[in-house]
Amino acid sequence: MRFKDTQIEMSHGAGGKASRKLVEGLFAPLLLTDAAQMLSDAARVEMGGTAIAFTTDSFVVRPLRFPGGSIGELAVNGTVNDLAVSGAKASAMVVTFILEEGLASTVLEAEVRAMSAALKRAGVSMVGGDTKVVERGKADGMYITTAGIGIPMRGVHVDARTVRPGDKILISGPFGDHGITILLARQDLDLEADLVSDTRSVLPMVEAIAAEAATGIRWMRDPTRGGVATALNELARDCGLAVELNEEEIPIHDAVRGACELLGLDPLHIANEGQFLAVVSAEYADAALNAVRMTDGGDEAQIIGQIREQPAGAVVVNTRYRGTRIVEMLVGDPLPRIC
Amino acid sequence: MRFKDTQIEMSHGAGGKASRKLVEGLFAPLLLTDAAQMLSDAARVEMGGTAIAFTTDSFVVRPLRFPGGSIGELAVNGTVNDLAVSGAKASAMVVTFILEEGLASTVLEAEVRAMSAALKRAGVSMVGGDTKVVERGKADGMYITTAGIGIPMRGVHVDARTVRPGDKILISGPFGDHGITILLARQDLDLEADLVSDTRSVLPMVEAIAAEAATGIRWMRDPTRGGVATALNELARDCGLAVELNEEEIPIHDAVRGACELLGLDPLHIANEGQFLAVVSAEYADAALNAVRMTDGGDEAQIIGQIREQPAGAVVVNTRYRGTRIVEMLVGDPLPRIC
Repeated sequence: MRFKDTQIEMSHGAGGKASRKLVEGLFAPLLLTDAAQMLSDAARVEMGGTAIAFTTDSFVVRPLRFPGGSIGELAVNGTVNDLAVSGAKASAMVVTFILEEGLASTVLEAEVRAMSAALKRAGVSMVGGDTKVVERGKADGMYITTAGIGIPMRGVHVDARTVRPGDKILISGPFGDHGITILLARQDLDLEADLVSDTRSVLPMVEAIAAEAATGIRWMRDPTRGGVATALNELARDCGLAVELNEEEIPIHDAVRGACELLGLDPLHIANEGQFLAVVSAEYADAALNAVRMTDGGDEAQIIGQIREQPAGAVVVNTRYRGTRIVEMLVGDPLPRIC
Repeated sequence: MRFKDTQIEMSHGAGGKASRKLVEGLFAPLLLTDAAQMLSDAARVEMGGTAIAFTTDSFVVRPLRFPGGSIGELAVNGTVNDLAVSGAKASAMVVTFILEEGLASTVLEAEVRAMSAALKRAGVSMVGGDTKVVERGKADGMYITTAGIGIPMRGVHVDARTVRPGDKILISGPFGDHGITILLARQDLDLEADLVSDTRSVLPMVEAIAAEAATGIRWMRDPTRGGVATALNELARDCGLAVELNEEEIPIHDAVRGACELLGLDPLHIANEGQFLAVVSAEYADAALNAVRMTDGGDEAQIIGQIREQPAGAVVVNTRYRGTRIVEMLVGDPLPRIC
């Protein structure tokens, strides 16, 4: 095994470098038939001649409810979004609950209702599930796991290896809202801000791009744990090219920027739950951007950069002051349990 | 909501009456499009004209390793088996790990290796996954969730509503081994027995029945939490008929019988992880039994009873002494966290 850490730390669940080491060093070599699939958002499986996308995620967010959302809503949207950015429309979902003994039924019911509403909004059917209960102190209220299957959208091919210099990088809206909202909801910090989680289904926006610019789509990803920086570093590594962002075009709410400055965090490392990144060929970039902007909630979408030949494998930001800086993948875990 | 309990207790995860109340009173009405699916082992979904079976389970067994198996092996076999008893052959699986901070990597690696071996034995591909880490004390080493999709076996229709008086009840082998093994492995009791968990894939046995007696199969179920008694009570309720067992034909290892007598438990309520129950029409009963017995590990299979008209909705046992007793669904949770 290439995984040499002697024990599991919070950082192994943070979606950054440590997570990648765990996946690439332990899970992928032992478990996966096709190792390439572990790092994509959803696997592609052939079932009786039909192509199906298949994905799963566990949710352990703390607190269970926060401004703009809750664990139940995240659990549905997260799986819908993983399928969407792999170019598939969620069709059916299953769910498991790991509940802590003593959990108030009203708390559980609120989450089940949040899931129900999110399922309706996304047009997905819940078809089965399982419940386990563990003793007091052996969970933190509840953990929810969802798995989903979806049908690939016609003409959409998401593959980092098809990315070319000159392609444009699109983001669906301002980022960092989710992670900073969770941080503030914990009240560990004496900070207040008028901020809500961005959790939502990105499916309508992805479908809008697919309708107007399907053949221009090279790659998509929802920048959850590890944030935009980690998602784009993985892209840079997987396509062997440079990802170049233009700081002036990056949409970030002032509250997120302010909190990050106070805490010494880079907004590019903060998790999002209702945004997605897309790499689109230059000739389709305007059509893609317009398609997202015309969608409900997509009016803050931006083209934030482009693909270059050099420096290969890196993410660089052209700063406001005509400098450049390298943005690394997330290291450590500044904000544990944000999803 | 019909679910009136004010908080979650261990019994809500035990697979018996309380679990059913939670599912029927809260999860099914709010989450499920087709409420009938929540209580079956796997849902049936149409994807682009292809029928697919889809299921999920979380595993929280304590201790993580026990004689004859471990949480990783259970997590693979459990999903393979849920698909098998719904009449489907597992094709692809996804997995999530919820890990406790501080978990030794060797413990995790052992479980990943156990999963890998179980996947190979079952002929299933793992195609994706997710990892979350929670703080020390917020989990119990690790929880594993798997979801699986499978292809329905030709000619096999599992539906309690097709069960008829005169049909035979088949079990694949002795029962109670898993639950009692877990109980002994916890060493809370000063009991020892030469017993190992029965965890295994039942797919080869289900495929053998399907090959020899497909049109005779009416219903199948793996009697995990809640044991044979709970599975058969659900059958009796769902088909509106009586399930009659013949005590003399029920295969139970002496060690299981002895431990149950000491503890005041009914072996019919003890969980199994590598057995399945089938209701087969009378004319196919011998063929089905022979097919299972010819399969590796199936030599202790038995016909243990039959379907009657009366007492409708109940499970009765014809005792050795020519009496009869009613067997209820599991109430409470005598053995928490056995899977």
